[in-house]
Amino acid sequence: MSQAQPTILALDAHGGDFGPPVTVAAAVDAVAADPGLTIHLVGLPEQLEEQIAVCVAEAGTEHRERLQLVPADKVIAGDARPVAVLRKGEGSSLWNAMRELAEGRAHACVSAGNTVAMMTLGVKLVGTLAGIRRPALMSQIPSSRGMTSMLDLGANLNVDADQLFQFALMGAVACASDTGKPPSIGLLNVGHEDSKGHSVVREAHERLKGSGLDYRGFIEGHDIFAGKVDVAVCDGFAGNLILKSSEGLAGMLFGELKRTLGSSFRARLGGWLARPALTTMLERLDPAKHNGAPLLGLRGVVVKSHGGAGRFALFQALLEASREVQRNVPERIEKMIRSHQAEAES
Amino acid sequence: MSQAQPTILALDAHGGDFGPPVTVAAAVDAVAADPGLTIHLVGLPEQLEEQIAVCVAEAGTEHRERLQLVPADKVIAGDARPVAVLRKGEGSSLWNAMRELAEGRAHACVSAGNTVAMMTLGVKLVGTLAGIRRPALMSQIPSSRGMTSMLDLGANLNVDADQLFQFALMGAVACASDTGKPPSIGLLNVGHEDSKGHSVVREAHERLKGSGLDYRGFIEGHDIFAGKVDVAVCDGFAGNLILKSSEGLAGMLFGELKRTLGSSFRARLGGWLARPALTTMLERLDPAKHNGAPLLGLRGVVVKSHGGAGRFALFQALLEASREVQRNVPERIEKMIRSHQAEAES
Repeated sequence: MSQAQPTILALDAHGGDFGPPVTVAAAVDAVAADPGLTIHLVGLPEQLEEQIAVCVAEAGTEHRERLQLVPADKVIAGDARPVAVLRKGEGSSLWNAMRELAEGRAHACVSAGNTVAMMTLGVKLVGTLAGIRRPALMSQIPSSRGMTSMLDLGANLNVDADQLFQFALMGAVACASDTGKPPSIGLLNVGHEDSKGHSVVREAHERLKGSGLDYRGFIEGHDIFAGKVDVAVCDGFAGNLILKSSEGLAGMLFGELKRTLGSSFRARLGGWLARPALTTMLERLDPAKHNGAPLLGLRGVVVKSHGGAGRFALFQALLEASREVQRNVPERIEKMIRSHQAEAES
Repeated sequence: MSQAQPTILALDAHGGDFGPPVTVAAAVDAVAADPGLTIHLVGLPEQLEEQIAVCVAEAGTEHRERLQLVPADKVIAGDARPVAVLRKGEGSSLWNAMRELAEGRAHACVSAGNTVAMMTLGVKLVGTLAGIRRPALMSQIPSSRGMTSMLDLGANLNVDADQLFQFALMGAVACASDTGKPPSIGLLNVGHEDSKGHSVVREAHERLKGSGLDYRGFIEGHDIFAGKVDVAVCDGFAGNLILKSSEGLAGMLFGELKRTLGSSFRARLGGWLARPALTTMLERLDPAKHNGAPLLGLRGVVVKSHGGAGRFALFQALLEASREVQRNVPERIEKMIRSHQAEAES
């Protein structure tokens, strides 16, 4: 990372379930891991100073100067609706963190807070890229062949075909590999055949066929985990339900596995012997390792962390934000949208 | 089962991925398991006679008289659309099986075939219950506390609030336990708060609050597997994607587990020791054990089996159809809908 441009991230220090004890600790880890990184910790000064002191006592003062405190005087509630966010959110930790990005003092904004508030303030303060209807939330999901990116995950509950088309374009840009090989795209539907699905997905399907993207057609739910495509596109209602039900199912199965491996002496012994291999497997699948969902389509990098993220998971979200800054994701999305619009008009 | 009324099931012998070798074998198992059961095997006579001879040679002639052959002269394609099903489907195995039910020669129709064709012919030949807008497909999913039923799973891609409300009523009837305790109902959404979701789920939520059902409000994706409610309600587009992505994830995780437990000598030894406990766990979670998704809202019991169902899974679907006949599910749904309509009008 030493050749990377210096990057400044604004971190909403009060977003998520745990607040400063986790956010400040993750920020300390991130600046220690990346010498080009500076983090603006945005929040209630007293709480943050106290927490920074705790962390510095633990980790030393070496990277202290790359943690800067940006004051805020309140915190947006986890269930605040857009109207309340706009009316009463000014001066809050999320608002001020988003303003750091909007006014050019930071290259990206990261929060583990309320998704609706992030979407609302992202659109209001940072603004949407020219040609983009609405931003979309994207996340990475482990598959049997690596990772599958999925969007939208809940920022847009009702979508039209044009929005699904834009989600595919944004996903293709955000998942482009450094090798230049374009990512493969699939559109989630209830069947693979052209005739399946409602009119919105069928219209988006026809448009994507002629898009120049590496579009592989309709995919079904199980194709996400089979790693059939690099990017799976769907509306935010279904995407949110798929993501959360998958988290719930994985949690249930790992719980069952743990209980099973403790259910008898023989099973306990077997579990002990298999533990190193199981640990390697669980590490590969650990959602904390892939925490950090970009809100694509804004005029800057905004990354949403899981609300329940711990120190390691939030650290991953900070690194994800830094990577997107390095890769100029917003500029590249704007260019892609512009070239598709020019094509449509010509 | 000896006190149960004699039940006649019509089985589409060509539905599903494997056809007569599986469907006839499953029918033989079902009549052997339930002395009150008769099965009408509907399909191409030559193929069926041949397969019955194979099964009788294996299992003996003891239950042969409770397997009756109903001829059909063709098979509906797995991807046939409604128009094609209606125009060209007459005389097919699914059409004739559905007609057995419609004309009172069978109490239920079972098929592992095309869902769209089942829905189309169910509505055309069997008919929809008075007051029901459209039938819905329901299935059982293992949760950490037992089983959760979910509907709709793909029969209705675009729904309004009234349909979601009807899905909840039908699910409540179909999942009612013999103890009389009403099943708990949840409406799938992107958050638990009243303000979350699009207008269709919010309207259905308000109606369900005053429905007299044991309605627990909005639930999220992870709540399905936590067993938070007995019945999870959603539109068929999201429901289908949730179900299939869950199947895909479970398949991926079990595959990873198998690979992991074969990855080293130590892990193999551990896996061997833990195998009895793991087998018990996998049996509990085995989707084949819970195969058989009723198409609720028709004037008779229609049960859809997974297309990839093997002999044991299809056997389970036949038993499920028989249970629904015994419990008079269609009559009870009609009564429930009528009482809610009377209430709404008064």
